[in-house]
Amino acid sequence: MKEKELIQIIKTTLNSEYIGDDCAYLKDLGIVITQDSLVEDIHFKMDYITPFQLGFKSVMVNISDICASGAKPLYLTISLSLPKHIDDEFIKNFYEGAKEAAQDVKIVGGDLTGSEKIFISVTALGTDKGRKISSRANAKAGYKIIVSGEHGNSAKGLEVLLKHPSPVFQTPSRGEGNKKFIQAHLMPVAQREFSKQIAENINCNYAMMDTSDGLADALIQIAKASNVTLSTDTSKIPHDPAVSINTVLYGGEDYQLVACVPENFLKKISDYTIIGEVKNGNSGIEIDGIFYSDIDDKLYNHFEEK
Amino acid sequence: MKEKELIQIIKTTLNSEYIGDDCAYLKDLGIVITQDSLVEDIHFKMDYITPFQLGFKSVMVNISDICASGAKPLYLTISLSLPKHIDDEFIKNFYEGAKEAAQDVKIVGGDLTGSEKIFISVTALGTDKGRKISSRANAKAGYKIIVSGEHGNSAKGLEVLLKHPSPVFQTPSRGEGNKKFIQAHLMPVAQREFSKQIAENINCNYAMMDTSDGLADALIQIAKASNVTLSTDTSKIPHDPAVSINTVLYGGEDYQLVACVPENFLKKISDYTIIGEVKNGNSGIEIDGIFYSDIDDKLYNHFEEK
Repeated sequence: MKEKELIQIIKTTLNSEYIGDDCAYLKDLGIVITQDSLVEDIHFKMDYITPFQLGFKSVMVNISDICASGAKPLYLTISLSLPKHIDDEFIKNFYEGAKEAAQDVKIVGGDLTGSEKIFISVTALGTDKGRKISSRANAKAGYKIIVSGEHGNSAKGLEVLLKHPSPVFQTPSRGEGNKKFIQAHLMPVAQREFSKQIAENINCNYAMMDTSDGLADALIQIAKASNVTLSTDTSKIPHDPAVSINTVLYGGEDYQLVACVPENFLKKISDYTIIGEVKNGNSGIEIDGIFYSDIDDKLYNHFEEK
Repeated sequence: MKEKELIQIIKTTLNSEYIGDDCAYLKDLGIVITQDSLVEDIHFKMDYITPFQLGFKSVMVNISDICASGAKPLYLTISLSLPKHIDDEFIKNFYEGAKEAAQDVKIVGGDLTGSEKIFISVTALGTDKGRKISSRANAKAGYKIIVSGEHGNSAKGLEVLLKHPSPVFQTPSRGEGNKKFIQAHLMPVAQREFSKQIAENINCNYAMMDTSDGLADALIQIAKASNVTLSTDTSKIPHDPAVSINTVLYGGEDYQLVACVPENFLKKISDYTIIGEVKNGNSGIEIDGIFYSDIDDKLYNHFEEK
């Protein structure tokens, strides 16, 4: 059974109105909350990531979720489960990486337990003070689709790492040109400024997500939640020429942001790229003029490298 | 290396003033936050607990932490990592148990990932609205030590379960008399009313903890953080006659509350047992007139069943 079907069971069982966005918005408290886990050999392998990088990334992916909501990240808790062979150096380096990623966000608690594999679960809190909170259900026809940064770099980096594993930042065999991609995968950077600019300046409802599961996935999630068509051209999506279009669309873990905002709002912000627009129509995405109702083999195969 | 030494490394690395109590108190947001994980084969085994009970307990232990702070529990997120063989019935039952334990506390998010073993990490939030928040550093000489409920039942229940494993609530071989102990272990109940009574009515600083790691551990943690001696008599500690004094003192996971409050406050509350008092002196606990500076073999051996 797929994750999305299982989440549907959870939603039905709990009958909760909160589950849907990356963060839950707790209006009475003025905060958003998100919790994400990283599991060894599922989300990462210790043969290519250092403890510092692991601490850094675990924190950053949760800060990215807060940024996707438009809230200002404030606090973190970290729950860490570790096998017996892990030494105190690992823990020290892990938390140094976590602290580096957190910056002014305070790490205020969590717990430490035993386990067979490394399990990391981070919870992040943000405040809505002076910020307008997004929802993926807020895209409207006529809105422009904008993104931060380049897409596909992280997936490209993972590809290189799996070919040349070694838990150091750079090995000569990986090639100098791949440094940027490896960095994007091991130490992604949450788009705090992009989020802040929008959330502090916008007066109307808007949609925003991060691209943790890939750009095409983010577009389809917004389209489905908002019941609109998101139309984009691959030529408009910022990406490195060394990264294939399939990786640009499907590659996860870039932690860039994608937002749907009114065109007349764009004059208030900078450092974004318009990749398309929101249209009335069926829930789905239109890429280079072809409509897809879901991310399926048809879409994937269309952009498969020949 | 022991968990407490590792936590010291984390505290030093992060230089955080928050880490110490079961919950972090985020005063600017008016909330407390806690995160605790349960790992298969470390904290539980699937051969004696049902998915419903597991969901129930995972939520309850975190609500207990919120209750220990004196805050009112409001929201939960649940991060669940599951092996491939887990079916949708497991997930449905797990969340039904979680919902039952949560009562009016809302489950608002989390995530679902793969893993080799079951890994559950729950984050709980509570509000300080109308409540005075506790700290284990707040015990003062002259305060009375009070507790909720009976102690040692959960550890006694675990003992029975390990002898007679089977993932149903009751098997005949376990004996009718053990039902209460098994229930205490598999489906502990957070002391919401005890916490509420104190936190809503007290006007001064006070100490409170839950007994997740055992009563003696809670007493020693409060004594060390407050730099006082906590004095108790084993004859005063409420417990079932079938439970040994060692289990009463050391047995974890009862999720009862222990608080140190001024004597003249006691008239405002009900349903508590006075088990001793706080004295000036070295950091440590005095049990039946003998002083212990830590929970070490000396203390354990003293109450070992002969």
